[in-house]
Amino acid sequence: MRAAVALGGDLVVQSVADPVPGRGQVLVASRANGICGSDLHALDAMKAAEQGNGDSMVASMMRGEAGAAPLIIGHEFCAEIVDHGPGVSVATKKRWPAGQLVCSNPFVGQGELVGYSRSRPGGLAQLMVLDANRLLAVPEGVPAQLAALTEPLAVGIRAVAAASRLAKRGPFVVIGCGPIGLAVTAALAHEGRGPIIASDLSPSRRQIAAQLGAAVVVDPATDSPFDELESLGFAEASTSPLLGSAKGQLGPVVFECVGVPGLIQSLLESMPRHSHMVVVGVCGQPDTIRPGLANSKELSMEFVLAYRPAEFAESLRRIAQGRVDVGSIITATVGLTESQWAVDSLRNAEQAKILVEPYRE
Amino acid sequence: MRAAVALGGDLVVQSVADPVPGRGQVLVASRANGICGSDLHALDAMKAAEQGNGDSMVASMMRGEAGAAPLIIGHEFCAEIVDHGPGVSVATKKRWPAGQLVCSNPFVGQGELVGYSRSRPGGLAQLMVLDANRLLAVPEGVPAQLAALTEPLAVGIRAVAAASRLAKRGPFVVIGCGPIGLAVTAALAHEGRGPIIASDLSPSRRQIAAQLGAAVVVDPATDSPFDELESLGFAEASTSPLLGSAKGQLGPVVFECVGVPGLIQSLLESMPRHSHMVVVGVCGQPDTIRPGLANSKELSMEFVLAYRPAEFAESLRRIAQGRVDVGSIITATVGLTESQWAVDSLRNAEQAKILVEPYRE
Repeated sequence: MRAAVALGGDLVVQSVADPVPGRGQVLVASRANGICGSDLHALDAMKAAEQGNGDSMVASMMRGEAGAAPLIIGHEFCAEIVDHGPGVSVATKKRWPAGQLVCSNPFVGQGELVGYSRSRPGGLAQLMVLDANRLLAVPEGVPAQLAALTEPLAVGIRAVAAASRLAKRGPFVVIGCGPIGLAVTAALAHEGRGPIIASDLSPSRRQIAAQLGAAVVVDPATDSPFDELESLGFAEASTSPLLGSAKGQLGPVVFECVGVPGLIQSLLESMPRHSHMVVVGVCGQPDTIRPGLANSKELSMEFVLAYRPAEFAESLRRIAQGRVDVGSIITATVGLTESQWAVDSLRNAEQAKILVEPYRE
Repeated sequence: MRAAVALGGDLVVQSVADPVPGRGQVLVASRANGICGSDLHALDAMKAAEQGNGDSMVASMMRGEAGAAPLIIGHEFCAEIVDHGPGVSVATKKRWPAGQLVCSNPFVGQGELVGYSRSRPGGLAQLMVLDANRLLAVPEGVPAQLAALTEPLAVGIRAVAAASRLAKRGPFVVIGCGPIGLAVTAALAHEGRGPIIASDLSPSRRQIAAQLGAAVVVDPATDSPFDELESLGFAEASTSPLLGSAKGQLGPVVFECVGVPGLIQSLLESMPRHSHMVVVGVCGQPDTIRPGLANSKELSMEFVLAYRPAEFAESLRRIAQGRVDVGSIITATVGLTESQWAVDSLRNAEQAKILVEPYRE
């Protein structure tokens, strides 16, 4: 088969051996696979490792032994059943007939993730192997491109679920409208939560956020999303909370969906008192904050990661329900040979989600 | 009267004019006044301001106009009614007879705090003026020394109330057993919450924490409080949360009661997954964290400040109930002339709460 093999941090299309499904596994054809920020970080880490700066969890996951299987990334996939491995029961075969579109949660074991390990090749190849007991059927009529959004949209469901322990109502402020911020916006909109204020430097990304359901979109280069709160009915308490009750004083929920140094502190400075920040973006570098400022405004921060299996399944259900125009997140769809172009283009913040369709070269 | 006047960052006992109660106010004799970390910061800020480094909110609050009233700090006080100002009704006079012990929430207006403003002199003086409508009666039989703990203990009530939105059960880890950490320990113990693991470098502070109800005390120089969790019945989930349910996976609640740079990051590193940090200590300096680490462990942080009026009143009620031996927090009681000694001694971390009794010089 043909695959976009990760070689020294670049995606190089090569012919490699077809994968062979083991016991309880199925062989599938990858129909659509999204590329995400974590993939870019992983490829960067591989490049750094090549240069001897291998001090990265991702790099060590992906390094593998010399002469080992090729590394094929891709964990946001929708695939089509092709064949079944040995030991798959008749009932399972009947349940997963050839041609059936499926998704699968890429987290398959402790620290084991499809598309981040040589032993679990991902969706940037014509064929891949999945565990039959982890398959989710894509409902009739849902195109593979939309089903491939199950994984990134699940991240939004998780972030909103984490925050809704604290705040049932909005306004909600989404900082950054890359795929993560758009997934959060989609999750809020699907649940009927709002109003949503979304902020991004890119006009095209802001447009997608509006299409997904953001009531207000803001260019942070010229405006603060927090200046929009008042027009949406949110007013900061006029008297100090130290003079009043502790109840009913929650500020807005702010989703940090960027993950670069300096952003958390800038939000601590600009968020109203009692705001709750859900940190969905992952900033791997050291970052400086002023904790005393957070005390003075009684702020809180919650750091989330990925999603739970039930949220992954819920994500596919939501796509099928079609309550939110999640297809607007897809800004390009390309063939396998354009995988490296996709990676390069994603560094351009005008793109949101680029899908690779490996069956067409 | 005699007062310990804050002069250039030092407490100097002087004779100053007796304060005169205004309309709706009472004249009280300060019976006991605790000195806290914020007082030390304020005095430091005054010293810095003297040297031209006046870039501090506290310093600007305390600077005042030249020739203005002397600055008298002290916001953790218990006082005794002496006289009533003009316009105080007979009913109010009857309610607050001479000799009655009272406490009062020092937060008296937007940004206005007794003991942090020249217009609101505090408890480090023989006499002071309080608003009649803000008085709380000290219940019969409660000594003034214990009632003077109302303010610092209210900080603990607030911190525990903030955290209990998320975690009804322990274990609870208290980092730092200064007055704040001890107040948190006392609040948890009063509410029957536990088990409590308390950590401090000082053996005498650890002993007080144990007296207040900590099940385990730890010297962080040699042991990690998190190593004690298992013995108290807390086990981190053995499988990754990414493979399981989002429910029922709260880690312990950790109260950060120190407020120095570096501590938050060290806790992010050592806390189990899903821990919730309540940041009670106030670190005014820039601090470096690694946000991505917090994502990978799905940690959360909540920053709290002071207390609400209802919590202040609850604090005095709890002292009267006597369920917890809060008197053990008081490590020294001195006369007014020893105020500067008290400030100097508090920089020695073996002390917890030092009370000044201004009626005895």
